[in-house]
Amino acid sequence: MSTVTKKELIEHITEKTQTKQVVVKTVVQAFLDSIAEELAKGNRLEFRDFGVFETRISAPKTARNPKTLEKVDVPAKRRVKFRPGRLMREGLDSQLLG
Amino acid sequence: MSTVTKKELIEHITEKTQTKQVVVKTVVQAFLDSIAEELAKGNRLEFRDFGVFETRISAPKTARNPKTLEKVDVPAKRRVKFRPGRLMREGLDSQLLG
Repeated sequence: MSTVTKKELIEHITEKTQTKQVVVKTVVQAFLDSIAEELAKGNRLEFRDFGVFETRISAPKTARNPKTLEKVDVPAKRRVKFRPGRLMREGLDSQLLG
Repeated sequence: MSTVTKKELIEHITEKTQTKQVVVKTVVQAFLDSIAEELAKGNRLEFRDFGVFETRISAPKTARNPKTLEKVDVPAKRRVKFRPGRLMREGLDSQLLG
């Protein structure tokens, strides 16, 4: 198991698609930026086979500092949830069994 | 709030980057396919500012059908977890307050 970076994926896609690396880099970055923008607007993104990105707003709440027992206000937050699509799930599980 | 599809994002990126739509489509699809492949291999993907995709394996377990009380074997599963990066989190929360 290792960590794959954006740079490594861009090099892989450049080779696989025979596209100029600068073009791949621009498109990949625009793609990631667009996803972040849509999520910030509260929109849901659905990529067939791959999966769904969506956000949920968690309500503001009051918590306590466990050491001092002081009350702390925790503001509302928008959380991102990703659910893999059918094809990705099949790939994940087939590799696990194989 | 609405659902944005891959097709809509591709059209948006085509316009934004002044790249041929067929190229954008090829690169975006190769990008999504590569992410799914890496996750299936158990690898972690880290995209600076955007976030991290990683998988966890949930152990196999025995559950019970709540109606019949019959035992059911639930196999091990590989689950995908996405955690937004710093920049995405800032975008999400700024829109929420604004």
